[in-house]
Order: sequence, then C-alpha cells, then structure tokens
Amino acid sequence: MATVTPWEVKGSVDYDRLIKEFGTKPIDEALHERIKRLAGKDHHFLRRGVFFSHRDLDWLLDEYEKGNKFFLYTGRAPSGPVHLGHLLPWLFTKWLQDRFKARLLFQFPDEEKFLFKEGLTLADANHWLEENMLDVIALGFDPDLTDFLIDTRHAGMLYPEAVKVAKKVTFSTVKAAFGMTNQANLGAIFYTAMQAVPAFLPSVHAGRKVPCLIPHGIDQDPHFRVTRDVLPGLGQYKPAAIHCRFLPGLSGMATDGKMSASDATTAIFTTDDPKTVRRKVMKYAFSGGQATIEEHREKGGDPAVDVAYQWLTFFEEDDAKLRRLHDDYKSGKLLTGELKQVLIDKLNAFLTSHQERREAARKLIGRFIIKDSSVFKRY
Amino acid sequence: MATVTPWEVKGSVDYDRLIKEFGTKPIDEALHERIKRLAGKDHHFLRRGVFFSHRDLDWLLDEYEKGNKFFLYTGRAPSGPVHLGHLLPWLFTKWLQDRFKARLLFQFPDEEKFLFKEGLTLADANHWLEENMLDVIALGFDPDLTDFLIDTRHAGMLYPEAVKVAKKVTFSTVKAAFGMTNQANLGAIFYTAMQAVPAFLPSVHAGRKVPCLIPHGIDQDPHFRVTRDVLPGLGQYKPAAIHCRFLPGLSGMATDGKMSASDATTAIFTTDDPKTVRRKVMKYAFSGGQATIEEHREKGGDPAVDVAYQWLTFFEEDDAKLRRLHDDYKSGKLLTGELKQVLIDKLNAFLTSHQERREAARKLIGRFIIKDSSVFKRY
Repeated sequence: MATVTPWEVKGSVDYDRLIKEFGTKPIDEALHERIKRLAGKDHHFLRRGVFFSHRDLDWLLDEYEKGNKFFLYTGRAPSGPVHLGHLLPWLFTKWLQDRFKARLLFQFPDEEKFLFKEGLTLADANHWLEENMLDVIALGFDPDLTDFLIDTRHAGMLYPEAVKVAKKVTFSTVKAAFGMTNQANLGAIFYTAMQAVPAFLPSVHAGRKVPCLIPHGIDQDPHFRVTRDVLPGLGQYKPAAIHCRFLPGLSGMATDGKMSASDATTAIFTTDDPKTVRRKVMKYAFSGGQATIEEHREKGGDPAVDVAYQWLTFFEEDDAKLRRLHDDYKSGKLLTGELKQVLIDKLNAFLTSHQERREAARKLIGRFIIKDSSVFKRY
Repeated sequence: MATVTPWEVKGSVDYDRLIKEFGTKPIDEALHERIKRLAGKDHHFLRRGVFFSHRDLDWLLDEYEKGNKFFLYTGRAPSGPVHLGHLLPWLFTKWLQDRFKARLLFQFPDEEKFLFKEGLTLADANHWLEENMLDVIALGFDPDLTDFLIDTRHAGMLYPEAVKVAKKVTFSTVKAAFGMTNQANLGAIFYTAMQAVPAFLPSVHAGRKVPCLIPHGIDQDPHFRVTRDVLPGLGQYKPAAIHCRFLPGLSGMATDGKMSASDATTAIFTTDDPKTVRRKVMKYAFSGGQATIEEHREKGGDPAVDVAYQWLTFFEEDDAKLRRLHDDYKSGKLLTGELKQVLIDKLNAFLTSHQERREAARKLIGRFIIKDSSVFKRY
C-alpha cells in the first residue's frame, strides 16, 4: 500500500505498476541527488515523489554537463478551465527553467480536444486557449525564454514536420499505443504526429540538435513513446521525459486518482474565488478523520487517504510544517476542519496572487506567442 | 467494346463500369448541349467523351444561371515531371476558366506523394513542385484569376480546416474508400482531409458559400466522394466534379490504360525535345497497322488500338482532319509511320511553344502563389 510521509509521498502501487507497464525508469536517490547538484537546489516535488519517473534523464544531464544545453517542452490542450492538477508539471517546468536557464517551448494543441471530444467546437477550444495562456503566463515563465506554439495558428511550421513523423507511424502502432479502433477519426489518428513535432522543431531551425526534456503527466507517455521511436529515424535525438503523478480529485484517491475539469465538485480551478475554494474543500474534500471529534481525538486521522493532507504534500513546500501537520493529524490533535482550513489558506494565498498575475498576463500574451521560426535559432 | 470515331471517343467498357462503380453520372447529350450554350462554345474533350462523367454538374450550372458563380479546383501532387496525360484536366480547366471567367484554386499537395511513396523525400517533392508550377502556368491560366495553394507552405490555412473534415471521417471509411490497411501511415490516412479543404476554403473566407467544380481524372473520385459526404455537415456545399479519362501510355490501351511518369518509355514529358518526342513515338507508340506495307494497304489499320491515332483524338481539335486521318488509316491509305509523323508534328508544335512559355513562367510563379487568405474574398 501507499507510503505517505511528509518527506516522501511514494507512488501508490499503481504508479509503480505504470513504471513497469510503460517501461520508464524511477527517479532514484542518485538521480535526485544529481538533479539537486546541477540545479543548485532541491524541489519538494522530487523529495516527495511527485515527479517519480523519467526516460533518458541521465543522458540529458550528461549532455548538459558537456555544455549541450537542453530545452523544455510541455503543453496544454485547451478545452476548459485550468485546475490545480494541471499546474503540477508547469510549476516544475518553471523551476527547471529558472534553475537551468532553459528555453521552454509550450505547445497549445488547440485541435486535440476538438478531435477527441464530442461537442467541443474549434471556437470553444479557441476561447479556452486564450484563458489557458493566461494561467501559464501567470506562473511566471520568463517571456524571453518561453515560446507558445499553437497548433492551428502555427500549423504552417508544424504540419510539414508532422508529416515526416506520420510517414513513420502506422495505424497498427497507434491502435496498440492508444487503443484506437477503426471508428477513430482521421484527425485523432494523425494527432500524435503533431504532438511529436515540438520535441525536434527547434533542432530543424537551430542548426544543431538540441536535447529536449518533456515534463508531463505520466498519462501522456504513450504519445512520447511513439515520438521517441520515430525521432532517431529523422536524425533527431529522442526526447527525455520526466513524469509526474496526478493531483487527486477532492473526492479522494480511491475514486478520483486524477483531478478532472469535467466534474466541478472534484476540481479547484485557478479562477475560483476564496469563498468557492473554502466551500469546495469543506464540502467535498474526502476526509481521513473519524466520525466524531471524540473518536478523532482518541484514534487520530489517516493522512494517507485525507485529501486535504495529500494536497498539502503538493502545495506546502516546508517539510517541517508538513511533518507537523501529518503527526498532529495522525495523533488526533488536529481536526479535519482545522486541517482543511490550513489547506484553504494555502490555496487561497496562492490563487489570489495567481489571479492578479493572470489578469496582468492579458497584456503579455503577444510576447509569448511565436512570430516565426527564427526564434528557434536561439535554442 | 470501345467505339472510336473522330466525333466521339466513347469510353471503353471500363469507363462505363467506373461510372456504375463510383456512382457518378455520364455526361449526356443534354448536359453537353447545356455546357456549350453557357460556355458559348464547344470543346472537343466534351464532343469526344474525354470528359465523360460528373457529379452535380447540373446543380452547379443551375446556381451559375442564378448568378451564383462557381470556382474551379484542381491540383497536382508533385513527384516527378509532368507528362501529356497530366495536362488533360488542366487544359479543360483552363478552357472553363476562360469561358466562365471562373477563379481557379490550384492545389499542390507536396506532401501527398511523400506520404504514399517510398523513397521520395520532401526535398524531392519541393524540387518537382517548382518544376510542375511552371507547366501549369505555361498553359496560360489567368494570373488574376488563379491561386496556387501549396500544402506544406499553406498548412497554416489548410490544417485548421482539415481537422474539421478529419473529425467526420473514420478509419473504416478510408479503409473502404482507398483500400487502406492497418499498415498505412498516419499521414496517408489523414491526407484525404487535406485534399478536401480547397473545395470549401474560399467559402470560409469569402463570406458566402461559393459553389466549387473540380475537373479531375476519374481515379481521384474516392477522395472527393469522402469530401462530398462530409461537407454538408460543415455547412458547406458538396463540390461538383467533372471527370476525364486517362491518356493511354505509348504502349497502348491494353497494357497501359493510364500514362505513367515512372516508365519513361510510355510517357512523353512536357520537357521532351522534338527529337525525343519523335524517337519515343516512332519506337514505342503501339501501332494498329499491319505487319507489312502491302498488308496494310490491303487490310488497313485499326485506329481503335493505334496509340498515335488515339492521342490525336485528344490533341487534334479539328474534327474534319481527325475524321480524314481515321478513314485514311482504316482504309490503308495512311501508313503507321505517316500517322505517327502527324502526331509528332502536332505534339512538337504544342511542346515547343509550351516550353517557351514554361521558361517565361519562372518569373511569374510569385504572382500565382497565395499570399494570404484575403484572396478568397474575391471568390
């Protein structure tokens, strides 16, 4: 079963199984130490196993140590509002950008959800694209090091490279990788080629092969498995990747292993106001506490299943504080309502300033969107 | 069996079967008369059944008579030099442009052959793109009414519309329409969506639904069947189409129903010099003549299988002259070598001036290539 302590949120059995199933590598202590050394700092997402798995990160760091700088690639398929779960890979990407002074290519595949979801129009996707870009900018990415690539707007750059990938991938492959059937639509079938392109697009224009690191939720791994299989045949590096766990939904890990935007009662959105956050956490966050105060004081709560506590392992950076919350909750000293209040205060402090930066970002969008391919010469 | 007379080259049994198989309509005498009336002129490709089949041409002409002008859409997938067979739909398209003052959207899907052929690179395709554009321009299309759309260069316009088509087409459909297997690559699977776009791209930008007429070789019908199935669901007209037969290769209709660029002995290219044309026709053109002059004088030749005569039904516009050649060949008065010489003179006269216009076209390419989508406001 899952081990949950302040200093380590070790992947539940499922995450371990994913490593085996997908054939990725766990981030072990030696690799963690190496990242710390090169970054000049630690990150609680590494300490706590939020980023728990990788592909070829050792190779990427070898190249980095040889002076072959890498760029970061991550993305967001716009189809709705951004919730806290979406932020995990981006927060870590921001940290990597800061520590390694790395350029970031941020893809907004605005056709993806249109192709995979019934009832979503391209106009809907375009609305959410604008909104989602604000959230990304609000996280504080360096405008001089960050480039937004929007599939429909930058199709002129993407499609000619995507066909090179697409020529090397058969329907059998995507059938196996994504479980597609003959009823899949042509755009959905082709799509993985579009998602592959940012991993080597800078190299096409930079005049050198630029190593690429993709921080992403582990669920996207099938796409990048295809990408990694194809790129060497195009004379390009395989991208390295670093994988994070999902933020569980409010209703808990058992029912809700990944927060979903489609159920507003399990997700907290970046635009939720303090009252909404308070209401959602108080009402919906699955509690590891006991049925009555008396029983709780006596038996204590279970932080391993308590969503408020679990979320704090993602959002409370201070190990000592987190350990104290853990121990006090477990002993029964801290009540569920009190623990939830700690989370609410933490989230609202973050979201209030995020929302300010988010509004300020409206004026900045133009600085982030790629104008032409000459930007890749800087990679 | 095939009926072949100077005034009518009626499709062989195969073409009739294609009409039934594909579910298209033959161009009957009433429709031929209507085109003549509206065009103010006849065309020998109609008189002789070179254009023999259509979809919704009646509807298109109804719209035209109501004042709802149509545009023409045809194309060329660059992968090698242009031969005489490629010219058939373009020559007729040029005539339609002149007679109906219609705009022409000419697509160069430079990724198509890359995706469908082993061993062809995008760089190869790009080389042939430049060469093939010269041939199209040399045919005399009006630069003020003709717009070149190049898939990789104009992917920014095409891809966002292609995904709308692609969402409505399943793998099962392309499997049935094109006989694709699970080993088909993703780009080849997606490609039909890119070929659908020009049929409605002007309507996306023009602010009105613009009827579209696609003159094309009958072999492209499966693509446009898919297009026609999808477009009403996007709120667009189904494109009308008019289909031509193939120019047979030099080795004859029996072995070589369609001229192929990959066998230089069956094709005459637009860049062949007069000596090459002479040599190819003399050496390779399948003869309907007899084994000896004496036998030929006695029994006469068979114009129905004689490639030189068959080609003249495409390239000799003068019915009286063609009928005389037919009758003289059939009676034995005209020898195979003499008939071949008539064809050689005809082709060389055409090709010599085509090659001059082709060189002059190098300076004109820029006038034809679409700059941005504002051009569609003129449709």
